[in-house]
Parts: sequence; structure tokens; C-alpha cells
Amino acid sequence: MTYTAPTRELRFILEDVVAMEGLKTTGAFEELSSDLTAAILEEGGKFCAGVLAPLNHSADQFGAKIKDGEVTTAPGFKDAYKQFSEGGWQGLSFAEADGGMGLPNALGAAFQEMLQASNMSFGLGPMLTMGALEVLTHAGTDEQKALYLPRLISAEWSASMNLTEPQAGSDVGALRTMATPVGDGSWLVEGQKIFITWGEHDCAPNIIHLVLARTPDAPAGTKGLSLFLVPKFLLDDNGEPGERNDLRAIGLEHKLGIHASPTCVMEYGGNGGAKGWLIGEENKGMAMMFIMMNSARLGVGAQGVGIAERAYQLALEYARDRGQGRAVDTKDYPAAIIHHPDVRRMLMTMKAKITAARSICLACAVASDYATHLDDEDERSRAKAREELLTPLAKTYGSEVGVEVSSIALQIHGGMGYIEETGAAQHYRDARITPIYEGTNGIQAIDLVGRKLNMMGGYPMTRLIEEMRETVEDCATSSNPELPPIGARLANAVDTLELATEWLRNPQRDKADVLAAATPFQSIACDTVGGYFLAIGALAAQRLLKDGEETGFAKDRIALTRFFAEIILSTIPGRLGDVHAGAALLFSLSEEGLGA
Amino acid sequence: MTYTAPTRELRFILEDVVAMEGLKTTGAFEELSSDLTAAILEEGGKFCAGVLAPLNHSADQFGAKIKDGEVTTAPGFKDAYKQFSEGGWQGLSFAEADGGMGLPNALGAAFQEMLQASNMSFGLGPMLTMGALEVLTHAGTDEQKALYLPRLISAEWSASMNLTEPQAGSDVGALRTMATPVGDGSWLVEGQKIFITWGEHDCAPNIIHLVLARTPDAPAGTKGLSLFLVPKFLLDDNGEPGERNDLRAIGLEHKLGIHASPTCVMEYGGNGGAKGWLIGEENKGMAMMFIMMNSARLGVGAQGVGIAERAYQLALEYARDRGQGRAVDTKDYPAAIIHHPDVRRMLMTMKAKITAARSICLACAVASDYATHLDDEDERSRAKAREELLTPLAKTYGSEVGVEVSSIALQIHGGMGYIEETGAAQHYRDARITPIYEGTNGIQAIDLVGRKLNMMGGYPMTRLIEEMRETVEDCATSSNPELPPIGARLANAVDTLELATEWLRNPQRDKADVLAAATPFQSIACDTVGGYFLAIGALAAQRLLKDGEETGFAKDRIALTRFFAEIILSTIPGRLGDVHAGAALLFSLSEEGLGA
Repeated sequence: MTYTAPTRELRFILEDVVAMEGLKTTGAFEELSSDLTAAILEEGGKFCAGVLAPLNHSADQFGAKIKDGEVTTAPGFKDAYKQFSEGGWQGLSFAEADGGMGLPNALGAAFQEMLQASNMSFGLGPMLTMGALEVLTHAGTDEQKALYLPRLISAEWSASMNLTEPQAGSDVGALRTMATPVGDGSWLVEGQKIFITWGEHDCAPNIIHLVLARTPDAPAGTKGLSLFLVPKFLLDDNGEPGERNDLRAIGLEHKLGIHASPTCVMEYGGNGGAKGWLIGEENKGMAMMFIMMNSARLGVGAQGVGIAERAYQLALEYARDRGQGRAVDTKDYPAAIIHHPDVRRMLMTMKAKITAARSICLACAVASDYATHLDDEDERSRAKAREELLTPLAKTYGSEVGVEVSSIALQIHGGMGYIEETGAAQHYRDARITPIYEGTNGIQAIDLVGRKLNMMGGYPMTRLIEEMRETVEDCATSSNPELPPIGARLANAVDTLELATEWLRNPQRDKADVLAAATPFQSIACDTVGGYFLAIGALAAQRLLKDGEETGFAKDRIALTRFFAEIILSTIPGRLGDVHAGAALLFSLSEEGLGA
Repeated sequence: MTYTAPTRELRFILEDVVAMEGLKTTGAFEELSSDLTAAILEEGGKFCAGVLAPLNHSADQFGAKIKDGEVTTAPGFKDAYKQFSEGGWQGLSFAEADGGMGLPNALGAAFQEMLQASNMSFGLGPMLTMGALEVLTHAGTDEQKALYLPRLISAEWSASMNLTEPQAGSDVGALRTMATPVGDGSWLVEGQKIFITWGEHDCAPNIIHLVLARTPDAPAGTKGLSLFLVPKFLLDDNGEPGERNDLRAIGLEHKLGIHASPTCVMEYGGNGGAKGWLIGEENKGMAMMFIMMNSARLGVGAQGVGIAERAYQLALEYARDRGQGRAVDTKDYPAAIIHHPDVRRMLMTMKAKITAARSICLACAVASDYATHLDDEDERSRAKAREELLTPLAKTYGSEVGVEVSSIALQIHGGMGYIEETGAAQHYRDARITPIYEGTNGIQAIDLVGRKLNMMGGYPMTRLIEEMRETVEDCATSSNPELPPIGARLANAVDTLELATEWLRNPQRDKADVLAAATPFQSIACDTVGGYFLAIGALAAQRLLKDGEETGFAKDRIALTRFFAEIILSTIPGRLGDVHAGAALLFSLSEEGLGA
């Protein structure tokens, strides 16, 4: 159950598909180079594969334990966390001035994928800290930044995100945790939060909780939410952890997967209230939350891709080793099952979807880099719109590919896949949370059709469709005969996506019909945009072929794209009916009729 | 986490979709009536829901324990098994002369679904006994029948199927277990078998193992396999369990799901050899195995449907109770999530697919009844061909619907679905074995395109397509305006299935291309045939409407069929490209290129 960091793949997509080096034009990443990218990926991959991956299975078996509010993580986690901190990995995409490496978020997302692939339960800790760092960087006061940023960027301390309450999941506006001003600038926070990832653990001497709460007399719903910074240990005059704050983990969830990630029930207050400080303005908690959320959603997408890659590698190894039956081509007996067409189909499907989802995640990350670093405000807001459009796709496609690929990987193992010792089952269990948390994929779809399609007068999707048509044209006019058929399949998919987009944007469209179409539309968008990035990769591969460079790699990339086009893009026109079906069809069974 | 037996649904499909009562024309089931069917379903449902369903979650937590070769099952299993035996449920579809109820296998399959839904880990025991009963009934000697049939039909004893060995999974011909003749009519069996469901347990005083083994000088591969009956306790002169046979469970697997079903590593021999008796002829083990397998494959299909139904009921209850967000129709806040279109889509998808898969399973069972009881040999062999054609579809669709629906059910629960206490996760874990065992779904697809499409000159698929076209016509000419559009969608699906069938049957077609097409073809066949049975149900519902009977039920049935037609059948023409893609596309990446 080893893991090989897919560094060549990641570098190819970063450089040749999502053009990360273009970020140098913003002036923010002058040092960026192919060598630096390669070095970071190699070093990061070495740490993930060498230190974290070997702990994955044993940590799953150990889980996490709680006793008297203290959480013990799996053997090896404490030391691995120390190495993670010492390597500076938490700060990869944060400013050098704050102690980070000052590299693009795109490179951070590539590292994130490897981190999550190697050990998802471990990787969740740093992923949550990253979300908190985004908020503090964007909205923290100078004092807050000075006190907390360096210790979080170094991963000396960790952070958690506290949104969910029993009655407030997807509907975050229903939360009830209260924050009352003390008068000295601090607040007293009281309430219970559930599903708090890494809310308590033994890997860091302090944990900084970001807690969404309601202030006295705040408006109802999401407009009355504010975000508070609530440290486990209050800082003394030297900024060191001092007095224990009035908060605690009162339970751990018993979950399907990610057993080694402590999912805590957190209690704030009870002995006077937990001391906290407002981040940003009062009643602007939702805006803060979306900063965290965008980071976390991309992180979950990368996580899904990571688990998929890991599961794929395990299945590929098994398919090469396991002999069963006679090969249809060589007639060898027993043949490794990789020679059977049906197994080959499964492997190709896995690899093609992983590549598509990975590309969307990294493209989303590059957009976020432009959205942060471009000088021109209009250009910046257009980049932001691209990031916002791609975020639900990255989260949804990454997570769905994680679940699907880990299921196929299990299937390739046959009966052995169902046995926990093999490792395939753990990936299947772990991956299943990703379509749920940080906004279910259904919520992503509603965000996509409700907000993202209509922002800036529809600009981001309109522009993306234009770009996709340029790629269709590039494929159509390629001298390599494999590329025009790819272009043709992509063209049909883009046409379908455009028709679906226009249908949804029709101002006469009933809101219920728009909501009814959300999930099938999102599915079409994910496959189409994934196919688009694959096609860009195929065009880049064709340039490699022309230059006589890495011809094996280049041919394989074109073949993989051809497969995606023939098997997946080809189905898209047939899925338009699902978008157009309308709410009436979904509600055509009475609520009673849905019963047994 | 209760379970309501879907007795009305089952009765509707048995009577109005797969026309079980037509079996009376064979003379075998003279007592069969609507009242009898209803009574059996009610009583069976009461036992499953009342006795077995409440043990499902606790048994999952307890699992099964092994110590010194003795297996302890979960608390409550022993008593439940006793009640199962006393109820006579094991013998439902076996001859009255042998102690059974003498009812159709179709009614048995309906009971099987409820049994597996209520407690899959428990239900596996009787499912395996049923497979053994089929073999003994068809191929046992009179002595074997006299000794074993009554005690197995009453479920006083249980049985197991021993096929798999570490090197022989899908490739059963690779097995090495040896049977050597003693000279007195008995054989000594030696070897190790893995994945033996209910191979050892504490619910019955004897366990009859059916063991596939190789005899001395037997031909290599599947042509040299023979089947042996190897009891845990040898029978004394009175037919009672006496001396302990030389076989034992030497380990239990630690699995993703079905924790309470003891999956054993079995060792035969070691102290002289386990005593066994040949069933049927030497070297005819594969034929014996297929008798067991056909029964078990249908059983797995019903199991998938059962788990899907149970998971669906849990999700439906949650969707009715859980308040989150504002309803798009009533504007209520908080609204039960069942009012959200995306949740409604999930529920409709679940129910439609369950109904389609359930219909295929019950149609397969009715065909098996005709194949057993028709007088005319030609008619019987045509019925057998129908059964053979539907068996891979029942197994594949049932199991895939089990996995998909249990995943959607988990998703509807949001974060709560990922918590083991909720119960949704168990269904997701349990269901995942069904696409694997009793022949992976990939093996089913190969069986379908390699054997079933071409048997009897292609008769069974050709005839099924004809029947489906008759139903298209019935829909097209219905006075209810909802039915012609269903017919139109079905027509396109059937046309696609026919094109795909012709493509596969082309004698010039390369074998590798046929194998490459197997899985997408099977998928098209499952959805099309499922849609066909739904359409038959819609036509029956239209007759109810005309008669003014159960109009609510009838309208819902038509609505559900319309949903299936619009959302699922509509995608089928777009999936033909996948069938035609060919092996070259699947092998277009080098084996090296599949790596990281």
C-alpha cells in the first residue's frame, strides 16, 4: 500500500494545461520556474509518500481516542505533524513576509492533493488550518495577524472551523451559538458545535478555533452571523499559550471513514463562556465563511482527486500482479488481469477522470492566484469570477471522482477488495465524506446555477464557453488525426452546456425548475470542462510530439483524451433532457406515493 | 431504523408486471391465488421486519467471532434462525413432498428481497442453503436427497458453497482442492477454501458443505472439476450428526461490511482428509456450480434490491423529518428537505431504479419457475433461455442499484449519513459486496455477451426485444396521454439495444471488441429491460385507473415510469458509442502509460 507522488502528471498540468507560469506576469512570483515547481513537487511528494502514506492504514485501524476531553491521535501522527511543520508545508502558498514560502496557490493545491492522497485523516488537520489562514490573512486585524499568523503558517499551532450545529447543517443560518461582548474588545462565546474536524488533538500546543456565532440583537438567518477567533489556550502577554479557555471536546463521532481524523463535538462556554475575538465586522460572518469555504471546497476537490489517485495506484498494482483467466490478446494463462478488456476499461476510466478532475482543481487554484495578485481591478474581478465558477466544479467533480474511482478500484480487487487488510476498502470509506462536507454536492449545484451562472451578467460561464470553443477549433485544425475527433466530441458537449446554460438563465424560468436542473447541469459542466482541460493537454502533448520530446508520455496523453472524449463527452448531448425535465416531474409522485 | 416490508409493491409486480399467476397453466401451482400471495408476503414481511430487522444494526457492531474453530454469531441470531426454521421460510419454493411450501420461486425471490433487506448478514445463511438445495434437488442421488433434503429444507441444518481459493476467484478452473476416492463410494477432500459465507456458525447443529474439487487425473481447468457434499458432522446410521468430519474454519475475514456474516477460511483435511460424497457426475462440477450460481445470482440481485429498499426507506424518513432551508413551493421555513427539488430528484431516482431492478429479479424468477414446471420441452427450454438471459441482468442491476441507492441514501442524510449510528453507512458498506460475489458484474457482462446473446441462435434477446416492442405499441396507443411519451423513450432504448445486440452478434466482430463492449452493453440492457417492466406496470396502472381502483397508487406508478423514461431511458441512445468503441481504445494507453 505504497503511494507514488504523481509529480510528472502534476507538473504537466500546472505548466502545460493551466499555465501556472503565466502568474509571473502579475509580478508576484518572480522566482517561479519549471525547476522550482519540479523541486517543490519532488520534495513535497517525498514527504507525503515517505512519512504520511505509511501511516495511513495503521492510523485507520487505531482511529482517534477521547478521554476527559483529551484526544489522542494515532501512533506516528504527532511526529509526522512535527515533520510537516518543520518542512514549512503549511505555509507553501502564504506570503514570505508572514513566514510562508510565497508560492502560488496552484502549487499549494498540487501539494494538497499529494497530502490528502497519502493520508486523508492527517491531511484534514492542515486543510482546516489553511482555511483559517485564508480568513486571517484577508480579514484579521494587524494584532490578530501578528499574534496568530506566524504560528499557524508554521503549523506550530493548528486551527479548526466551527460552523455546523445539530439543527444547522446546509442551512448555516439556523445556528444558535451566541457571542456576547464583554466590553474590552473580547466576546464570550457559548454554544455547541458538531462535526468539528481536528477540533481537539495532541499534535499541537494550541488550537485556534474559528467559530460562527450570533451576536445579541443580530438579524435572523445568515445576515446575523459573525465569526470569532477562540483559542484553546488564551495567549499571555508574551503571546504564548497561557490560561485554558472555556471550551472542550465532549465527544468524537464514530464514522464510516477518516477514522484517524478526530471529528469532535465541541462545547463553548459552560463556565462563564469561551473568550473570543471578532474577525472582520459584526454580521459579516457569512463573507468570512465563504473565504474559508472557497479554500476548503478546493481542498476537498483536491482531496477527492488524491484519494482517487491513491486507490487507482493500488488497483493498477493489483491488476498487474493478479493472474486470472486467459488473455484475449496474448493467450497467456494465467494472464495478469490488466490484459482483460473490462479491467482495462476500468483503469482507463479511472485515469481519465482523475486527470480531468485534477485539471479543474488546479485551474481553479490558478484563477485564485490571479484573483489575488493581478494589479488591474477589472482583471482581478474577472479572475475571481473564474475562481468562483470553478470552485463548485472542483469540489463536486473531485469528490465524485474520489468516490467513483475508489469504488472501481475496490471492484478490480474482486473479493480481496472487500477485505479491510487490502486497503481498497479504506479509500472507499474515506472518500465517501467528500461529496458531503464543505457544502454537499447538491448545495454546490445550487450555488452554481443560482449564483455563479448569473454573476457579472453571466460573464464567467460565457467566457469559459468561448475559450472552450477556441480549443475545439485548435483540435479541429490539428495536423494529428487523433485531435479533430476529440474536438468534435468536445464541440457537442460545449453546445449542450451552452443550451443548458441559456435554458437556466432564461428570466422566465421558474425557480423550482432551475433548482430541479441543478445537479444534472453541474454534472454536464464537470464533464465538459474536464474534457476541455484534457483537450488542452492533448494539444500540448501534440507540441511535445512535434518537438520529439517525451513522445511516449505525449502519445499516452492524447490516447487518454481520446478515451475521455469517446466514452464520456459522447454521452453529454443525451443528458440535456435531464436538465430540461423540470420540477413537476420530480414532484410528480405524491409524498405519500414515495412511501413503501 | 425500522423496515416496512413493501408488500403492496411486491404483489403489484408479481401479479401485474411479471404475471406470476400465469404459472398456474403449468399445473404446478393450483392453489396459487391473489389471497395466498398476499398472505405469504404479509407473513414473511412480518417475520423479516419484526424479528430480523431489529437485529441488523447491533449485529453489525458485534460482528462474528472465532475461537478454536468455533464461530459465535451476533446476539439474537441463534433465536432468529430458530424462528426462521420454524416458519418454514427456507422451503418456501421447494416441493411439498420434500417438506417445502411448494410455492413459486418468484414468491421465493420476493421473500428473499425482504429477508436480505431486513438483515443481509443473517439472510446470507439461508441464501447459501438455498443454492445447495437447488443442486441437491436437481442432481442428488435418492439417498442424498433422503438424508439431507428434509433437514436443509426445514433449515434445521444449513449449507455452504465452497468454490473460491486464493488463486482461483473469477477463474474457478484454477482451483487445486483435491478429492481422492476411498473405494466405498466416499471421497477424501483436501484443500483450503476462502470467502466461505456461513462456513461455520452456531445457529445449526450441522453444516453441509458443497465443495468444488479436482479428482485424480482429471483434465485441467473447469472441465476437471467435481462437486462434493462434505458434512461438518458425518451422519450416523440413523441419519443423525455423529462423528466430526476433518474440516474446520481457520479464520474469519475482516470485511468492509456484512460484519455479522461469518466469512470463513475453511480447511478440508489435514488429519486424513474430509469425508465427502460426489454430487452428480465426476468432472461435471461446473454444471453443478451453475445450478447453485443461477440461484445465488438471482439471490444477490434480490439482495441488492432489498438493501436499496431499506436504505431508501431510511432516507425517506430522514427527508420527511429533517428541516433545513426554505421550501421553494410553500415558502415554509424550516422546510423538511423532502420539499427541495434536489432531494426529490434523489428520492425519485432511488424509487424508480429499485422498482426497475425488482421487476427484473421477479421476472427472472418467474422464468425459472416456467423452466422447471412447463410440460413441453421446447417451451421449457425457451423459458430456461429467458431465465438465463435475465440472470446476469438481475444480478448486475440489483447489485448496482443496491450500491447506488445506498450511496444516495447516505447523501440525503448529509453529515449524519457518515456517522455509523445513523445506519445509512451500514447499508452502504453491506451493499458493496454485491457487485463482486457470485461472479463480479464484469463476469456477468462477459456471460451476457459471450454466452447468453448467442444461445439458441440468439432467441432469448430477439424474443425479448419483440416483447418490448409490443409494450412500446401498447404505450403508444394508450388513451392516457402520459403513456405515449413513455413508449417513445422506450422505443429509442429498445432500438439502441437492438443495434448494440446486432453489433455484438456480427460474426466478423473481433472477440476483444466484444469483451470491450460487455459492460456498457450490459448497462444499456439493464436500464432498457428495467424500463420495459416499468412500462408494463404503467399499462397495468392505467387499467386500474380505468376501473377506478387504487387510483392514487396507479397515478404514482405512471408518474414513476414517466420519470424513469425521461431521466434514464432518454440517455440510452447516447451510450451506444461506448459499446462501439472497441478494444483498441481501451488498450490505447501503454501498460507503462497507465502508471503515475
